[in-house]
Amino acid sequence: MEIIRSNFKDNLNKVYEAIEEADFLAIDGEFSGISDGPSVSTLTNGFDTPEERYQKLKKHSMDFLLFQFGLCSFKYDHTEAKYIMKSFNFYIFPKPFNRSSPDVKFVCQSSSIDFLANQGFDFNKVFRNGIPYLNQEEERQLREQYDERRSQANGAGTLSYISPNATKCPVTIPEDQKKFIERVVEQIEDLIQNEENKNLQLEPSIPGIIYLCHYCFQKERYIVISKVDEEERKRREQQKQAKEQEELSDAVGFSRVIHAIANSGKLVVGHNMLLDVMHTIHQFYCPLPEVSGLVSLQVIYKILLDTKLMASTQPFKEIINNTSLAELEKRLKEIPFNPPEVESAEGFPSYDTASEQLHEAGYDAYITGLCFISMANYLGSFLSPPKNHVSARSKLIEPFFNKLFLMRVMDIPYLNLEGPDLQPKRDHVLHVTFPKEWKTSDLYQLFSAFGNIQVSWIDDTSAFVSLSQPEQVQIAVNTSRYAESYRIQTYAEYVEKKHEEKQAKRKWTEDSWKEMERKRLKTQYTPYIPQSRYYCRSKQTTSTRGIVPSAAPSHTITVRVLRLTFQGRVTRQQV
Amino acid sequence: MEIIRSNFKDNLNKVYEAIEEADFLAIDGEFSGISDGPSVSTLTNGFDTPEERYQKLKKHSMDFLLFQFGLCSFKYDHTEAKYIMKSFNFYIFPKPFNRSSPDVKFVCQSSSIDFLANQGFDFNKVFRNGIPYLNQEEERQLREQYDERRSQANGAGTLSYISPNATKCPVTIPEDQKKFIERVVEQIEDLIQNEENKNLQLEPSIPGIIYLCHYCFQKERYIVISKVDEEERKRREQQKQAKEQEELSDAVGFSRVIHAIANSGKLVVGHNMLLDVMHTIHQFYCPLPEVSGLVSLQVIYKILLDTKLMASTQPFKEIINNTSLAELEKRLKEIPFNPPEVESAEGFPSYDTASEQLHEAGYDAYITGLCFISMANYLGSFLSPPKNHVSARSKLIEPFFNKLFLMRVMDIPYLNLEGPDLQPKRDHVLHVTFPKEWKTSDLYQLFSAFGNIQVSWIDDTSAFVSLSQPEQVQIAVNTSRYAESYRIQTYAEYVEKKHEEKQAKRKWTEDSWKEMERKRLKTQYTPYIPQSRYYCRSKQTTSTRGIVPSAAPSHTITVRVLRLTFQGRVTRQQV
Repeated sequence: MEIIRSNFKDNLNKVYEAIEEADFLAIDGEFSGISDGPSVSTLTNGFDTPEERYQKLKKHSMDFLLFQFGLCSFKYDHTEAKYIMKSFNFYIFPKPFNRSSPDVKFVCQSSSIDFLANQGFDFNKVFRNGIPYLNQEEERQLREQYDERRSQANGAGTLSYISPNATKCPVTIPEDQKKFIERVVEQIEDLIQNEENKNLQLEPSIPGIIYLCHYCFQKERYIVISKVDEEERKRREQQKQAKEQEELSDAVGFSRVIHAIANSGKLVVGHNMLLDVMHTIHQFYCPLPEVSGLVSLQVIYKILLDTKLMASTQPFKEIINNTSLAELEKRLKEIPFNPPEVESAEGFPSYDTASEQLHEAGYDAYITGLCFISMANYLGSFLSPPKNHVSARSKLIEPFFNKLFLMRVMDIPYLNLEGPDLQPKRDHVLHVTFPKEWKTSDLYQLFSAFGNIQVSWIDDTSAFVSLSQPEQVQIAVNTSRYAESYRIQTYAEYVEKKHEEKQAKRKWTEDSWKEMERKRLKTQYTPYIPQSRYYCRSKQTTSTRGIVPSAAPSHTITVRVLRLTFQGRVTRQQV
Repeated sequence: MEIIRSNFKDNLNKVYEAIEEADFLAIDGEFSGISDGPSVSTLTNGFDTPEERYQKLKKHSMDFLLFQFGLCSFKYDHTEAKYIMKSFNFYIFPKPFNRSSPDVKFVCQSSSIDFLANQGFDFNKVFRNGIPYLNQEEERQLREQYDERRSQANGAGTLSYISPNATKCPVTIPEDQKKFIERVVEQIEDLIQNEENKNLQLEPSIPGIIYLCHYCFQKERYIVISKVDEEERKRREQQKQAKEQEELSDAVGFSRVIHAIANSGKLVVGHNMLLDVMHTIHQFYCPLPEVSGLVSLQVIYKILLDTKLMASTQPFKEIINNTSLAELEKRLKEIPFNPPEVESAEGFPSYDTASEQLHEAGYDAYITGLCFISMANYLGSFLSPPKNHVSARSKLIEPFFNKLFLMRVMDIPYLNLEGPDLQPKRDHVLHVTFPKEWKTSDLYQLFSAFGNIQVSWIDDTSAFVSLSQPEQVQIAVNTSRYAESYRIQTYAEYVEKKHEEKQAKRKWTEDSWKEMERKRLKTQYTPYIPQSRYYCRSKQTTSTRGIVPSAAPSHTITVRVLRLTFQGRVTRQQV
């Protein structure tokens, strides 16, 4: 079901109901871009730690707009032995709702926009009919504005009708407007004197005169001035309040859906969902946590499951070659899997997986849900007796909870939301710095004595180089000791030095912070306090995956007569 | 005429022809936003100097995308005594053309997007069918890439068919791909041995194997390997070059239109055109000049005329109340003006000014041209004998050349491209700094003894305050001498201090720059060298305009019973 600005309010209860009754939810987002900094291949270095990756995405991906959100609810019908599905495809746009609302600036990346354009994405629908939203802080501020105005009106009686500058200096009325103003004044005095008149409708102002009331912006507005008694005044005040309350609700808009998901505490399934999770928190809820405890990513989503991670993990890893969403969905209809039994709820349109509508968020959320069902049910086949249906609450799927797939990291499959991240041995990895003129081929040249190597670019002047044998590492470091143009250190040395720098920087920041504190009487700063959670290392031991060939930025295949280099480049996040 | 990616090449000669034959051109641009920094009212402070305004726009407006460009050519037909008009409305989008093309990121401002959406702007057309472009530097780089590849191919013969990494280490072929690779090798050897075979078509690679050629990205590609003699090789090389040349042209795309305008040296007319001029230079040509010599804004446009400035200047100022484009166009059809005689050229659609299509760039360019014609012709009525037609080459309009309207500056009507800017006396203006909690009303309070004042906000903690009498200025400064929470200085003092700071900063920058130079052997930096031009103060003395009431951020009207404040806010640049 397509949800835009005009049908949002009418369908909100349907959305709430779907979330409430669901066994699990599937989500997907479409963004206006992926990286405003380095190229995507540099953004996703093969030896990023999960925290480094999080920091990079936080820094380089959050200024883009999530402008389409897919939500799909799945509810299992035990009698019919099938899932009932409700799918929603929301178009989202931060339309300013009045003159004090935030005027959001967002970035677009032309490759991403071009990609979506080629998929037939409807930008007009986003920009003309997108549903607005506010994050928690913006909502609080708006509520405060309304409250302030209201308390002014209630407390000070008629004061609300007097400008706050009323006690200030008078203004000279321009010569050509004097007549008009005099006429208005006469009319108002007449209204006050005359018992019978209750209302006065002023004629539109002549061009150049700006007048009255907080709301008028259009060119011609008639102003009505009424005489009212105390009771009537209160009644109108209440009417106004109710209207304001509705305006506030409208402004919070799509964020209400996110709040409902958060309150439900339901299992939320996504495919390669790290960016989706980060964007929804950042855009609809609150600034992303500084770091330290990625656990706080669960501020909205209590239980997350990433189908790309699930498909890359035992027992699926061995029987699934390609974990891109479209391929996965196809694969999971075939033996040894069973196509899931899913039906659209009454009044909801159904998707046809035969005619793909990939990269429409609602459709992607839908097939993500299908993938989850197939894989969950497959786990049931290992039970004795085997079970055809494995529910979203089953212990069997718990090992996959709250681990988000990490794209193109060689040896850490996931970011762990429930404890410390995996720390693979990187004793075959070197950190190399070199002049910025160097290319991948220069690195191959440098390490030509060491056989097969893999290069993961960090930036213009540094890269990780992984050797095939850990024993070679010390040799490489030793032979480079007196080199002038480049520098080689082991991965362990690199990590240690980085840690030291960070400590030094933190200390510096803390010191200068204390210094500033001394200088200031009052500060506006509210440090981020992550929810306190206990840490536990997950029981599940997902085997660290082997080095994935396609993850390497440069991959050479030698075939006697042909020696060719392929430089891959990926512009999409969801593969 | 609507020009998009698909019909651009076919119509380019029409565009060239229109520019070539025109008496003058009118232009207009639509952008994805105006200010990514301060609110528009702070961006346009009433006491900005032209240079300050330029710097602010350069800093806060250039990350937006100019995504629609209107160009309208006007050619006078003496026999028919009317103008023949050709109008083009270009949709523009930086579609990446290959994997080494720049992946442009641009900002969108929701208020601007919302504004355009309400005008029925077609974003799908921009993003799906926009014409690409390159600036000069990008074009140079792309040309270099092609040249390099070509010289490699020509100079080194068959070397072009060998990967640059060919001399590097071999790669282990994964077990599951060995069979496939062996089969390929056999086929290639067979091709080389066998006299009769000229071509070999390889089967698509199995998933996971990436192979050959610079261009392949799609999932399945067949590779053809051919045996060729020297002559055939050259022929193919030439074919390839011709194709590359066309690709290059396609990539330069819309910038070719801008180059044609630049080369024509024709008079270019715009309405409130400063941002249009800055955007076209920045986006299609080269980075905007640092400052010093705004003359360099003429890098593309040799002669510019701003109809908003013209309409705000004598003799039009007195008889034109509203200089917004739509209102101006209406006004200039009425006495004492004559509606201009303009006809669409054959094969070009005509616009109907009765059914407005405002904010379509082509339409806005068109009515800008109409405004110019009406005003130019009106100047002819002062001649004896009076003339009905005043051409774009007439001396009568020269006083309006190369002066760009400055929005909401109180006392400097234009930015002067041909000499030093006007320096109005600001002896009634104070510069005030204060705590960031202060509001306009606090300033009114502070200056309540001085009668009517006007406040122009600079930022959260400073503003210009203009008093009605210059004599009051020193009194205000004196009485504030011992104030703790705020500081008042005269405008002259403020300017002097700012100048000193700038000198100090410049010195610092130069010193640290020299320091850096010493440390580096080679630098990538190319300083911007503005074209040398002579400076002359314009003969025309445009009277500095009085204080415009609507330019003040706060305007109080006192009408005995009513004391009301209106806080204006403008979100659009073109008024």
